[in-house]
Amino acid sequence: MKHNFGAGPGILPHEVLKQAAQAVVDFNGIGLSILEISHRSAEFEAVLDEAVKLVKELLEVPEGYSVLFLQGGASQQFAMVPYNLLPEGGKAAYLETGVWANKAAKEAKYFGNLEVVATSKESNFNYIPKDYTVPADAAYFHITSNNTIYGTQLQNIKPSPVPMVADMSSDIFSRKINVADFGLIYAGAQKNMGPAGTTLVIVKDEILGKLDRKIPAMFNYQTLIEGGSMYNTPPVFAIYVSMLTLGWLKAKGGVAAMQKENDAKAAQLYREIDRNPLFKGVAAMEDRSKMNVCFVVENPEHEKPFLKLCDDKGIVGIKGHRSVGGFRASIYNALPTTSIHVLIDAMQEFAEKNK
Amino acid sequence: MKHNFGAGPGILPHEVLKQAAQAVVDFNGIGLSILEISHRSAEFEAVLDEAVKLVKELLEVPEGYSVLFLQGGASQQFAMVPYNLLPEGGKAAYLETGVWANKAAKEAKYFGNLEVVATSKESNFNYIPKDYTVPADAAYFHITSNNTIYGTQLQNIKPSPVPMVADMSSDIFSRKINVADFGLIYAGAQKNMGPAGTTLVIVKDEILGKLDRKIPAMFNYQTLIEGGSMYNTPPVFAIYVSMLTLGWLKAKGGVAAMQKENDAKAAQLYREIDRNPLFKGVAAMEDRSKMNVCFVVENPEHEKPFLKLCDDKGIVGIKGHRSVGGFRASIYNALPTTSIHVLIDAMQEFAEKNK
Repeated sequence: MKHNFGAGPGILPHEVLKQAAQAVVDFNGIGLSILEISHRSAEFEAVLDEAVKLVKELLEVPEGYSVLFLQGGASQQFAMVPYNLLPEGGKAAYLETGVWANKAAKEAKYFGNLEVVATSKESNFNYIPKDYTVPADAAYFHITSNNTIYGTQLQNIKPSPVPMVADMSSDIFSRKINVADFGLIYAGAQKNMGPAGTTLVIVKDEILGKLDRKIPAMFNYQTLIEGGSMYNTPPVFAIYVSMLTLGWLKAKGGVAAMQKENDAKAAQLYREIDRNPLFKGVAAMEDRSKMNVCFVVENPEHEKPFLKLCDDKGIVGIKGHRSVGGFRASIYNALPTTSIHVLIDAMQEFAEKNK
Repeated sequence: MKHNFGAGPGILPHEVLKQAAQAVVDFNGIGLSILEISHRSAEFEAVLDEAVKLVKELLEVPEGYSVLFLQGGASQQFAMVPYNLLPEGGKAAYLETGVWANKAAKEAKYFGNLEVVATSKESNFNYIPKDYTVPADAAYFHITSNNTIYGTQLQNIKPSPVPMVADMSSDIFSRKINVADFGLIYAGAQKNMGPAGTTLVIVKDEILGKLDRKIPAMFNYQTLIEGGSMYNTPPVFAIYVSMLTLGWLKAKGGVAAMQKENDAKAAQLYREIDRNPLFKGVAAMEDRSKMNVCFVVENPEHEKPFLKLCDDKGIVGIKGHRSVGGFRASIYNALPTTSIHVLIDAMQEFAEKNK
């Protein structure tokens, strides 16, 4: 039994994996694999429809928004957002809360001007800057709602005077959000939604089509919306597994229930980090992520033996990102509370051995 | 038992599907699904390395070429090719052999000038134009090696005076090609290589980096080459299944052996179409595709009952594209000869009933 704390591609629900494996051999008893049916078949159209419906239902997406399943990951959205929303000569505002936010911001410069409203780079992104103003003349304001590497998360996302664009790759579906506050939300599937290979985009239709720029079909949200995520062959299997995962989430009680569970999971783990004399948290208290819990050992010599202990207990994917060091426990929706307990037990056992 | 003649996403080898299903539950016995491991794990890096190695080996890719597994399908390549290769004010030459070739050509216009060297549009693309000259001042010359919808295929691809770019989505790995004749080859995986969700690109390094244009990271082949197809999270599962399929192909004797089998499969089916008085082929004889066999019934009233007969015999995916009508038997690498026989038997049975 493995306890998968990997940062992503990350853990998926066991029942989802079982059903996905069955579909790879024989999808819904039709005698064909999900991997070898046409994306234009009634069977797959039903999958895509259901996936879109679940997104709308689980996030209470209001009228006037389109839901897309695309390819290319969040990194492709970094470029598509300014391609579609930033006029030449115009300005885009970015909140720099980590290297991913930084990469997103850099792509804006290919299409217009960039204003970084605030950054926490000087302290290796261990907090979320709060003292900034979003310029009223910006084409949009971009945030990264959760910063996987540093274990920080925007706990209170305030509405913005200009369309707000959010990279929610690592916390989508983990907590309630007010979609109406956003112009565009995007998220790579591979943390809280499904396997690597598809990217969710939720976009307010009225912010599109306002530029003079001519945009190639595959980079143009409007083409992709008109094609209903099937302008070309979509990533069938990744969308199917995302649909299963969203169905699992709905059966668990939806986002509100999941948020409650995530809050409890995170609270237990942070409590142990704060209590245990051998460990300490990395991120500023008020900005601590409920998805990625980053911590270090007080004594650097404890790093390797603790990793070894984790390994012995089936705890995997817990090594911190090289730019932060230490440990990172990614505690996505599908991670059961029992795995949190196994990790806490390991921390306590380790403290006991090393006191 | 189904006989899957679908045009794509199409048939995959049974043993590949079995192994893929196992990996969705437990990958190589590591206690985790292939869907929930890090793309930076040693396990996945080995998969990607092996996939790239198999491509190089099976197609005898010479030195100086990079092999990439990307996302976005061939349609994204339609835009990335001119983005990276066509200077502003420059000219790109395209051979128009179908709507996909046409879509590819259209994207060039966002980046420079387009010259269509020849088209068979006037006869609904039922042949491959041969009487044209590739302009020596073009930045590149683009072809579509196989035209899925119309059942035509370039049987003799002559070297071009300028870098040749080929969309080989529906016939890659089906026959021997001389990679050295091409500047860039791309192919969506979902016909002869794997499931939907990844796109193979083979590019000659020296044709890149020659433009002044600044290209966002995800659209820039050079960034993607530097990242070794992992500039961002790749489509892990689609690459894994592609690796399995390429391994299966190698075990079958590689591309040369497959070509022999494909030639035999196509010959048997075309022979029946030409012999059977109820059916006739759609494409010009000399341009007939060995991957997509398009045919119609002489008497339109026979269309529905023949489809019904096919359905009764487990023959699926054989309805022709709406722009051509009739039938299309896609006979990709993984389609066994037995399925060809079942289809021929159905045609003969149908002719017997309707004589």
